[in-house]
Amino acid sequence: MIEALPPGSTIGILGGGQLGRMLILAASRLGFKCHVYTDVPGPACDVAAAWTIGAYDDQAKVEEFTRTVDVVTYEFENVPVATAEAAQRIKPVRPGPKSLEVSQDRLTEKRFVSELGIPIAPFASVQSVGDLESAIDNIGLPAILKTRRLGYDGKGQVRIENRDEVASAFESIGRTPAVLEGFVRFDCEVSVIAVRSGAGETRCYDVPTNGHKDGILRRSTVPSGLPAAHLARARQIAETIAGALGHVGVLSVEMFHVPDSDSEPLIVNEMAPRVHNTGHWTIDACPVSQFENHIRAIAGWPLGTSERHSDAQMDNLIGAEVEPWRELAAQEGLCVHIYGKGEARPGRKMGHITRIGPKSNLR
Amino acid sequence: MIEALPPGSTIGILGGGQLGRMLILAASRLGFKCHVYTDVPGPACDVAAAWTIGAYDDQAKVEEFTRTVDVVTYEFENVPVATAEAAQRIKPVRPGPKSLEVSQDRLTEKRFVSELGIPIAPFASVQSVGDLESAIDNIGLPAILKTRRLGYDGKGQVRIENRDEVASAFESIGRTPAVLEGFVRFDCEVSVIAVRSGAGETRCYDVPTNGHKDGILRRSTVPSGLPAAHLARARQIAETIAGALGHVGVLSVEMFHVPDSDSEPLIVNEMAPRVHNTGHWTIDACPVSQFENHIRAIAGWPLGTSERHSDAQMDNLIGAEVEPWRELAAQEGLCVHIYGKGEARPGRKMGHITRIGPKSNLR
Repeated sequence: MIEALPPGSTIGILGGGQLGRMLILAASRLGFKCHVYTDVPGPACDVAAAWTIGAYDDQAKVEEFTRTVDVVTYEFENVPVATAEAAQRIKPVRPGPKSLEVSQDRLTEKRFVSELGIPIAPFASVQSVGDLESAIDNIGLPAILKTRRLGYDGKGQVRIENRDEVASAFESIGRTPAVLEGFVRFDCEVSVIAVRSGAGETRCYDVPTNGHKDGILRRSTVPSGLPAAHLARARQIAETIAGALGHVGVLSVEMFHVPDSDSEPLIVNEMAPRVHNTGHWTIDACPVSQFENHIRAIAGWPLGTSERHSDAQMDNLIGAEVEPWRELAAQEGLCVHIYGKGEARPGRKMGHITRIGPKSNLR
Repeated sequence: MIEALPPGSTIGILGGGQLGRMLILAASRLGFKCHVYTDVPGPACDVAAAWTIGAYDDQAKVEEFTRTVDVVTYEFENVPVATAEAAQRIKPVRPGPKSLEVSQDRLTEKRFVSELGIPIAPFASVQSVGDLESAIDNIGLPAILKTRRLGYDGKGQVRIENRDEVASAFESIGRTPAVLEGFVRFDCEVSVIAVRSGAGETRCYDVPTNGHKDGILRRSTVPSGLPAAHLARARQIAETIAGALGHVGVLSVEMFHVPDSDSEPLIVNEMAPRVHNTGHWTIDACPVSQFENHIRAIAGWPLGTSERHSDAQMDNLIGAEVEPWRELAAQEGLCVHIYGKGEARPGRKMGHITRIGPKSNLR
């Protein structure tokens, strides 16, 4: 059990991007102040009561920051575990360092999920070209080679179709420790946005289907229209993982929906110990968004509802797609979100739009 | 016609209270930065990219502030007109100084509305006890004596029931220039939250009924359930006033609904050239809130929809009512807003709660 932080308390956020910005907007609704710690100034700084620039591995600076806040959270999973542990000796860090440790290394994550008896694509550890050869012997082709650490938005991964690509594939990811993943035939990708309180209560938002292009999320749609039993299983998987981590806050789990399989309709792809792009629709379609529920959980407040009041379709604005902001704003009823980043570089998430409509009876 | 400010531009806000805070949260969704100018640090400062402390009549300081922003707006109507005019020589001030000038003096406001042919309670200017005596001769009793300037939340006004209260009533409001208002029999109070663009387009949110206690708003409810023709008339009145002011941004008009009158079902009580407490429900029940539409208007963006997706009941949290924040947060589906003010003094607006439900067909 966690003591609830009263309004007026200060929430410390490691990371200065758009997820931090949206966390701050949600925290501010509840009367909290926010202090951001980031290695480079980012869009979260514009709405923070205070911000500190420092390296994430500068433990003395992180400790100094931690003394000015009442709880520490993070908006990305690549915070060094040692940093989180140092902070936790001073103030609560939520989600705890274990959530970071498991999710920032693909191999550790896959082993963790697998050991919970949750279906996951076949995988093998790869440290060398030789490892990769034998991994392919076991898993087959096509397969996907991913770096163990620091991958996001399709970065740090390469698909292997033929044996003769092995050496160049390992080269292309920088010859770093990696994981080979077997190819899964799926009909759609879904994600569960779960929030778990310090008291161990878990709530899940309705499960969206997600579309990606070039490894970057394009669209999330709720309701998914998937069978109720499959959705229940998806939520159960996320709850199991959150419980096993002792997670406090939002946990996001991406899964593949496998056609014609009733015994195990879902295979876990990856997870993130934080609010997630596939949950941005909750800002406009739910009384309590994923961002507010994350803040409620880490502040020891009662969780808010995870129900939606509207159906929703969220589309990312990537790179130059943000440029017609005026035309987007003119679209009747569209909810426009722009992150206030500077340059609209290709592949950069600049904002998102959500179209909501009357709630259907589907989940 | 106004040129649209691109995301990344800076909005200057005169005033540092909860309305400023909620304006900033809305502006941040659209990618704007905000700079607050306030005489005392307030809840808006915690979410502003920058803030300046200065007196509202310190023109040099306001001018310096204005040079750092792209447009100036305000969250309260008692900004000195001279200050707004000084700022306007440097950057656009929206709504314009005329909206301030008319609405910060009750007598000017009543004359303005009256000259537009809009129904308003009988009124008379009062500068002395003698004026008050003759005003009562014309208007009758009971009546309400209100200071011309600086009244809000029931402050600066007194009800007069009998002739023998005349001298003490004028004393109690500090013997300042005042207006005597005739007493209006009404069955409910309503308000129109209108937003007008620089191009002259006006949109109105659905009209709530409002309940007050001790002169302070307690509750706003949408839909009102009033006849469609009366609601259309209410919107028409607000649009007429907004047009006559050349207003850009949100304009709020409070009205009395008069029973059994189809010819003139509404009588204007007062107006404010800004976002309004009776529009707070729009945050949770509309795709585009009053705050976002105010920002859109002053930034030259297309107006957003003023439609609601849900029915709503908003209750203010006044003084100690904010203290059971934990129990409020535990109420399933309740939207909780806390302003992050320090001390919960009696009569101080500390937050609000909104309960939303499926949209009915009523307006």
